[in-house]
Amino acid sequence: MQFLSDNAAAVHPKLWEAMRAADAPQPPYDNDGLSLALDAVFADLFGRPCTVLWVATGTAANSLALASMVPPHGGVICHREAHIETDECGAPGFYTHGAKLLLADGEGAKLSPAAIDAVMAGIRKDVHQVQPQAVSVTQASEYGRCYSPAEMASVAAAAHAHGLALLVDGARFANAVAFLGCEPWQACEGAAALSFGCVKNGGMSAEALIFFDEGLADLARLRRKRAGHLQSKGRFLAAQLLAMAEDGLWLENARAANAAAAELAGAAADRLLHPVEANEVFLKLSSAEREALRGQGFSFYDWGPDAARLVTAWNSDPAHVAKLASAIRQL
Amino acid sequence: MQFLSDNAAAVHPKLWEAMRAADAPQPPYDNDGLSLALDAVFADLFGRPCTVLWVATGTAANSLALASMVPPHGGVICHREAHIETDECGAPGFYTHGAKLLLADGEGAKLSPAAIDAVMAGIRKDVHQVQPQAVSVTQASEYGRCYSPAEMASVAAAAHAHGLALLVDGARFANAVAFLGCEPWQACEGAAALSFGCVKNGGMSAEALIFFDEGLADLARLRRKRAGHLQSKGRFLAAQLLAMAEDGLWLENARAANAAAAELAGAAADRLLHPVEANEVFLKLSSAEREALRGQGFSFYDWGPDAARLVTAWNSDPAHVAKLASAIRQL
Amino acid sequence: MQFLSDNAAAVHPKLWEAMRAADAPQPPYDNDGLSLALDAVFADLFGRPCTVLWVATGTAANSLALASMVPPHGGVICHREAHIETDECGAPGFYTHGAKLLLADGEGAKLSPAAIDAVMAGIRKDVHQVQPQAVSVTQASEYGRCYSPAEMASVAAAAHAHGLALLVDGARFANAVAFLGCEPWQACEGAAALSFGCVKNGGMSAEALIFFDEGLADLARLRRKRAGHLQSKGRFLAAQLLAMAEDGLWLENARAANAAAAELAGAAADRLLHPVEANEVFLKLSSAEREALRGQGFSFYDWGPDAARLVTAWNSDPAHVAKLASAIRQL
Amino acid sequence: MQFLSDNAAAVHPKLWEAMRAADAPQPPYDNDGLSLALDAVFADLFGRPCTVLWVATGTAANSLALASMVPPHGGVICHREAHIETDECGAPGFYTHGAKLLLADGEGAKLSPAAIDAVMAGIRKDVHQVQPQAVSVTQASEYGRCYSPAEMASVAAAAHAHGLALLVDGARFANAVAFLGCEPWQACEGAAALSFGCVKNGGMSAEALIFFDEGLADLARLRRKRAGHLQSKGRFLAAQLLAMAEDGLWLENARAANAAAAELAGAAADRLLHPVEANEVFLKLSSAEREALRGQGFSFYDWGPDAARLVTAWNSDPAHVAKLASAIRQL
Repeated sequence: MQFLSDNAAAVHPKLWEAMRAADAPQPPYDNDGLSLALDAVFADLFGRPCTVLWVATGTAANSLALASMVPPHGGVICHREAHIETDECGAPGFYTHGAKLLLADGEGAKLSPAAIDAVMAGIRKDVHQVQPQAVSVTQASEYGRCYSPAEMASVAAAAHAHGLALLVDGARFANAVAFLGCEPWQACEGAAALSFGCVKNGGMSAEALIFFDEGLADLARLRRKRAGHLQSKGRFLAAQLLAMAEDGLWLENARAANAAAAELAGAAADRLLHPVEANEVFLKLSSAEREALRGQGFSFYDWGPDAARLVTAWNSDPAHVAKLASAIRQL
Repeated sequence: MQFLSDNAAAVHPKLWEAMRAADAPQPPYDNDGLSLALDAVFADLFGRPCTVLWVATGTAANSLALASMVPPHGGVICHREAHIETDECGAPGFYTHGAKLLLADGEGAKLSPAAIDAVMAGIRKDVHQVQPQAVSVTQASEYGRCYSPAEMASVAAAAHAHGLALLVDGARFANAVAFLGCEPWQACEGAAALSFGCVKNGGMSAEALIFFDEGLADLARLRRKRAGHLQSKGRFLAAQLLAMAEDGLWLENARAANAAAAELAGAAADRLLHPVEANEVFLKLSSAEREALRGQGFSFYDWGPDAARLVTAWNSDPAHVAKLASAIRQL
Repeated sequence: MQFLSDNAAAVHPKLWEAMRAADAPQPPYDNDGLSLALDAVFADLFGRPCTVLWVATGTAANSLALASMVPPHGGVICHREAHIETDECGAPGFYTHGAKLLLADGEGAKLSPAAIDAVMAGIRKDVHQVQPQAVSVTQASEYGRCYSPAEMASVAAAAHAHGLALLVDGARFANAVAFLGCEPWQACEGAAALSFGCVKNGGMSAEALIFFDEGLADLARLRRKRAGHLQSKGRFLAAQLLAMAEDGLWLENARAANAAAAELAGAAADRLLHPVEANEVFLKLSSAEREALRGQGFSFYDWGPDAARLVTAWNSDPAHVAKLASAIRQL
Repeated sequence: MQFLSDNAAAVHPKLWEAMRAADAPQPPYDNDGLSLALDAVFADLFGRPCTVLWVATGTAANSLALASMVPPHGGVICHREAHIETDECGAPGFYTHGAKLLLADGEGAKLSPAAIDAVMAGIRKDVHQVQPQAVSVTQASEYGRCYSPAEMASVAAAAHAHGLALLVDGARFANAVAFLGCEPWQACEGAAALSFGCVKNGGMSAEALIFFDEGLADLARLRRKRAGHLQSKGRFLAAQLLAMAEDGLWLENARAANAAAAELAGAAADRLLHPVEANEVFLKLSSAEREALRGQGFSFYDWGPDAARLVTAWNSDPAHVAKLASAIRQL
């Protein structure tokens, strides 16, 4: 009974169907009909013009976005626990040719306008210090917390006030929108680019890098090729994204994952390290308690010496979830 | 009737099956059972120990290999028409952080030992000049020519005599082995790394980056992650590669493509710009002749003002091939 | 009366003489007799074999050293207020091609073994996280604090225990040695490389990048050229370094600067933010007090809203120092 | 009697004077009065607004210029024998983060409009190929040949017609202007940036990187710092450049070097590999002849098996020049 991560969950049947249907003669790279359809489909989803590039991973999506926003001598303000800082082996440094991540603090791995202001206040405007050009926030955050529309708008406003572009790392964007119950654009308001996650939400190998600032997209296209991310059979990536967007599948999957997480949270209210808003549950659990759960067949990651992280997915088995909830209650 | 490229051909049914079978719970990244099986399967195929990393594209495979062989202040000797020089938007420069491609000449886009020696002879051993660290050859070459085992061995010997590591770009390695009728290892003898192509040969999104010099593989693993090429559901890439290796599917597919190309070549002996050894056919064709063929429903790329490139694939329709052969004869 | 920085102080007469004497026909780059003499002179100074490369700035020295120790996917542990982090516009990121600075805390801008251990404890050994390869400490630190021989040895031991190479940024190394009264090698024990500062200590345009791990020097030579730091008339840089090393001029200059700082510190014991060990004095001074001092003709930098930094140099005028000391007393 | 290179010649007395005069208290970096005076002095020299940055070497000047013109995924058209291609250890690749030098041919190491057009004609405008953004020419060229004002204007026009910025590598710009007898601006007409050489012409450690496109200068300032080329006592570099510009010293020095080269050329009319226009003389000389000359005390570089390169400098001793001319005549 697996609660390790959503990043290895099964691929949704509708995506399999879409990929199989895409296996017909088409021009290579992103010149096929499916790839060409992405802009319009996502423009419709977000209610505003955008340019969409498929890439294989969130790391590539975030890094390409940052590289098109930030020069090598620039910087990116992000949370100390942001995925781009802690879990991408320095990928932003690779893609931006050495730009710096400037770390800020904030509850729940979320940035506030004040945190952005504080970083900026510490930087002299001269050639001796790295000058920030962008802010990156994660929606939902690395602790499964969501920026409300008002919060996102205020973060964007703070960024813009300093002349900084905003990237939203949306590896679990669907989970955030499902929780917030808002329009998709409200969950990333003011962003110049959004990494719209698909892999963790039932995809196989495609993420959507969405540019709302279209001037950045052309740069990103060249850099995508240069990074070896322009797949010749790109139609299979486009097919996944289109299937996900169609009929709200992305939200449906996210709601299922969120509901499973909420059920676990309900069983462990006194153990929660963070409010559960998306599909990640961080629990105080002693070493002995973790051992007990694992002995019952549940797998999950330790989170330091006294806690654990449980992640649900679009296809978390309701029976497994119920069993785990019950097991936690009985600890 | 499509003869544009093999890089957009359909995915082989056995690969679809393998991917579907891989859609069971597994650890993420390359910790799943399929990814872990790659080393042994390819070691068996090549009759020697090796380390295999899946990546999504040949560009990524070549660039990661070069980056693990060549420091930023180093150089790579390759043919003037090598794919890494002409068609990867500078990807090797990105991955190696600025190492230089040092261009050599040679018939059929093939390098000879003499060409390697000539480049080396022009380089002073001092800090003012870029010092080469690697040689890259393409098997089959960009003009569909193959290095015989003896030729490959002599190229490797020349490289090694200068202290250079050898990379074999094998985007169409299967086609070369099918043509040469040799053991796989003979077609890349002396290579420290091989990009073993799968996408052009019936794959969807996986190439095998094979290191025979295992010391290089660990560096490449870090760089793969850093480049955003470590997919979390890597099991689907591994599945493609394993299916391709199983029961000689890779050779079977390549033989079919080669046979189709040979049929076209047979119909155009007096028009051939290059002997046809793999699955690419370069023909002298006037603008009017090309127009005539296109008028009959054949699609292909121009190759300069007076020629065309026809590429066959594992699934080229025999009826289409026969029609095109006949149409060429009747020009 | 200037107490802004030692980095713009006059050039020592003996260095002028040495440069003039070097203006005779010599081979270019670092093939002149003066450049060739550096290794032996500094080996003698440090009592151990070393390789010395001149460069124009401390930023270049530090960055070249780090680039020869740390791969692009690696990291460098340093203090949060290290010059390489705060004042070099990301130069280490440029030279290392994106390696990360991993920030640690410590009193007086000094690193402790525990701080190094703490950073390492937070890093998983996998491909998802940047793996540190080096530690950088500043001697004297950015707050003018010195590592005693025992402290430096313990920092080096901690670094080595984790497999990390040690760089000592010695922009004010002379001031540290003058304060510590130890042998030069004791002030950088265990370092693989040392940026031996000269410019702030009476030089014009030369710093010595000293490698005690000679294997690193050859890489650094190539990178120095590639960075445009291999000056063709390098003999003038070598001349400065040799003059500085001769007859202990470097220590004599540093002692003068330290004595001036000590005099100021003596006048402001109750205002000191940091013990004064080298040639920097950080004082609590209100805005009004700073204004008062400036009104008497003293120049210096603000250090936040309620403090100031005063820096002395090898040629600080004793009369100016005495006046400033007196002025501070009378505030 | 030294004819190896002008890059190690003595420093002109007026530059020594200027540097000594600069050894007074001044703000650090490029905030001193001398550095601040550069723009106006060179604007006057070139008859147009410009922004001037001092740097220590021509390699740094060229690379910083290119990095401000060309993105990492871009390219630079230059001659196959350009210094940036052959003698800078890949520095442009380092500074531009991997942009490609696209090599063209041309007599005397000079580019023609046709050569530029030919490179551009070979490049498809798509994401698969590196897209050029700049042209770099060397004035005087690596074979001592000069672009006439008309030639330079036509090269610039060709570059601009393709949307490419022009860099003039003027390591020996003074020698070219002295030969051409034109206004300085005519020798670099249409350039966005010029590396104005000083070191080979009697300088010690300063080159002027001149931007006529001022938008590029701000980027270059950041990159200069980041490359460790922002010297804290920059006033000594500015002093050299100002002294050189004053009263036409730069032209006076260049004329002396050119005259010496012309004298040698006059003695060897039948041996010249290239017309002698600046201060480099390329002569057919057998191995035995070179040995004979060396036996008489002349030093110079071989230029392949049957030739030699002789370089004169601002301070070539007339007696040495006359002796060498006579010795060549008597071979």
